[in-house]
Amino acid sequence: GNSLEPEERSMEPPAVPEEAEEEEEEGAVPLSVAPGPVGCQLFGYVGIEAVLDQMKIKTMKTGFEFNIMVVGQSGLGKSTMVNTLFKSKVSRKSSQPGQEERIPKTVQLQSITHVIEEKGVKMKLTVTDTPGFGDQINNENCWDPIIKYINEQYERYLREEILITRKRKIPDTRVHGCVYFVPPTGHWLRPLDLEFMQRLSKIVNVVPVIAKADTLTLEERAEFKQRIQEDLKTHAISVYPQEDFDQDPEDRALNDRIREKIPFAVVGADQEHQVNGKRVLGRKTKWGIIEVENSAHCEFPLLRDLLIRSHLQDLKDITHNVHYESYRVQRLNESNRPGLSPLNGLPGKGPWHMVASCPPRPQRWARRHRPLLSPALMIHPLPWSPASSSHLSWWQW
Amino acid sequence: GNSLEPEERSMEPPAVPEEAEEEEEEGAVPLSVAPGPVGCQLFGYVGIEAVLDQMKIKTMKTGFEFNIMVVGQSGLGKSTMVNTLFKSKVSRKSSQPGQEERIPKTVQLQSITHVIEEKGVKMKLTVTDTPGFGDQINNENCWDPIIKYINEQYERYLREEILITRKRKIPDTRVHGCVYFVPPTGHWLRPLDLEFMQRLSKIVNVVPVIAKADTLTLEERAEFKQRIQEDLKTHAISVYPQEDFDQDPEDRALNDRIREKIPFAVVGADQEHQVNGKRVLGRKTKWGIIEVENSAHCEFPLLRDLLIRSHLQDLKDITHNVHYESYRVQRLNESNRPGLSPLNGLPGKGPWHMVASCPPRPQRWARRHRPLLSPALMIHPLPWSPASSSHLSWWQW
Repeated sequence: GNSLEPEERSMEPPAVPEEAEEEEEEGAVPLSVAPGPVGCQLFGYVGIEAVLDQMKIKTMKTGFEFNIMVVGQSGLGKSTMVNTLFKSKVSRKSSQPGQEERIPKTVQLQSITHVIEEKGVKMKLTVTDTPGFGDQINNENCWDPIIKYINEQYERYLREEILITRKRKIPDTRVHGCVYFVPPTGHWLRPLDLEFMQRLSKIVNVVPVIAKADTLTLEERAEFKQRIQEDLKTHAISVYPQEDFDQDPEDRALNDRIREKIPFAVVGADQEHQVNGKRVLGRKTKWGIIEVENSAHCEFPLLRDLLIRSHLQDLKDITHNVHYESYRVQRLNESNRPGLSPLNGLPGKGPWHMVASCPPRPQRWARRHRPLLSPALMIHPLPWSPASSSHLSWWQW
Repeated sequence: GNSLEPEERSMEPPAVPEEAEEEEEEGAVPLSVAPGPVGCQLFGYVGIEAVLDQMKIKTMKTGFEFNIMVVGQSGLGKSTMVNTLFKSKVSRKSSQPGQEERIPKTVQLQSITHVIEEKGVKMKLTVTDTPGFGDQINNENCWDPIIKYINEQYERYLREEILITRKRKIPDTRVHGCVYFVPPTGHWLRPLDLEFMQRLSKIVNVVPVIAKADTLTLEERAEFKQRIQEDLKTHAISVYPQEDFDQDPEDRALNDRIREKIPFAVVGADQEHQVNGKRVLGRKTKWGIIEVENSAHCEFPLLRDLLIRSHLQDLKDITHNVHYESYRVQRLNESNRPGLSPLNGLPGKGPWHMVASCPPRPQRWARRHRPLLSPALMIHPLPWSPASSSHLSWWQW
């Protein structure tokens, strides 16, 4: 009943049939407000649930950000997996053999941002790749650049949040999910896997997957998964979805089912094949086609559902409410200690939280109808410096 | 395609018909990624728009807050209007003649909170009434307690936001909309109306209405509305929806239509009558029944649609993004000036923003399945002190 455009008709009384008038002779019917378990009994339709549509329209207008990181040694199909997830070439690599770069001598962080639009919903997707991870003779501390990058994004967000004059919507470059590719050894987690996940799961949502699962037999896969789950438990590594953050029994039931199947044994593919007259994404082998989107063939659909179709918003919420808040608390406590106020190093005269050096708040109506732009590839060699943050200016949220 | 529970079948190749195999002999089909205006071309369904459902589910689980204030001299039907809007006795008054309190000698602020649930969506509604406003012989500064109350809510929110350890969801007591009742004089806005709206429209969304519009003829109503619009323009009073905050041409077109009809000429009623065999909310007079929800009779449906069905989320957004941000900027700037740091008066040793005196963050899963409680009536005599803020503890968001 949207009646924002009523016809301007007479306010004179409508023709009321005599019968109705008669019935009313006894007087108006008082409202019956029965007490009940609900705070307030309604005596008619109000329209509160219209807020859901209002929120939907808003999200469709503004779009949203989603940032994902892929970590694992080279050759585990990270780029192909990301391309398969988002059905587009969102990875830094072309995925064509022969065009790959040489393995870098240190861990490099490379981010690429695309705008993906589907059914009117715009997602600004940033995929951060970590070439060089686990590829060296000595891989000690190879997680450091990754931890540094993740914390830098929290720092950025924090510095925007504490500005006096701040943006209407703070640009969000925080990593919402870190997909960790376990090599399909069929044995146990390696010390590097354990070290990495132990450290990273404290600051980011880690989603481990068994890469290139087509190299494992069904039995090997089941056993490997079992061992990994034991390893994670033994080392108290809490991967996503973390038990601690289940919100209600319903969430818990759903997430328990997911946790049983973690890590997903996945196969990626960005080639299409003809199967039963249909085109499907898959890997063609001498013994048949492995259909990656067929849940009878591999667990890629589980990963896709988790990251995109069922838990995308939750990944963002946990990042904001848990990981970012932890960083913020720690940072403000540090800053509070005398002689240890690194946030004071920001430009501006007052204490760090009162810095007013940001550009004027963008006008709300200027953020609309910007052209959709082609992908921007950002390579930030380490040490990652705030100076390179200028790559964000092409899209001001 | 939610496939979180795939059957664990063989990963061996499915039976592929020979024909399909033949067709594939020439090799896999490379993905065609055509360049276009969209940042990224998709070669299949990803499921991005599932985020809309995820957000919807989240809102339905957590509910939302909505705070409304009614201002206007006594006898203009403020309580009845609020009851009519929310189809329940959400106003502080019983709406039964004879049970009303005497007019207070100063402006009193009285808030009452209810939980309204409709189609699974829970709204925590707080209605703040302002008895005594405009009822005195000398009404000078009678807007001060109202401004004070509104700013106190911003202050509260700010103090929660700047805590080091803060709540997962900051309780929102900020006034999202202030409905101002203009008496149906048929003349011009009175100096009190102008003074009030001029001051209040700078800090809150003001929605003026012509109260008890059934006392005006159609011609009187149209003329009065015209004069009020002129008055508002002359005095540069920007009532809700403010032209400055339209986000895009679509918003502008819709809001322009609303602005043409502001202030809505409304009639409230919380009595049901029989009209054409149907029960309708209305006021029965000797010359007929004024159906308040009939847009041919009065503009109550416009007010209801604006406040609830089309702009509720926008009222909250403008409050958060514009009014609260303005308060915050002003407050932090004040606090930055030497010798003028009222926020430093908070308990705690460090600067104001590092206060860590709040209770531990409530566990996420403890916020669920709380019983729905009966309404809580809060009367806060002025000066409104933070001590009385304990009335919020019955519902920890």
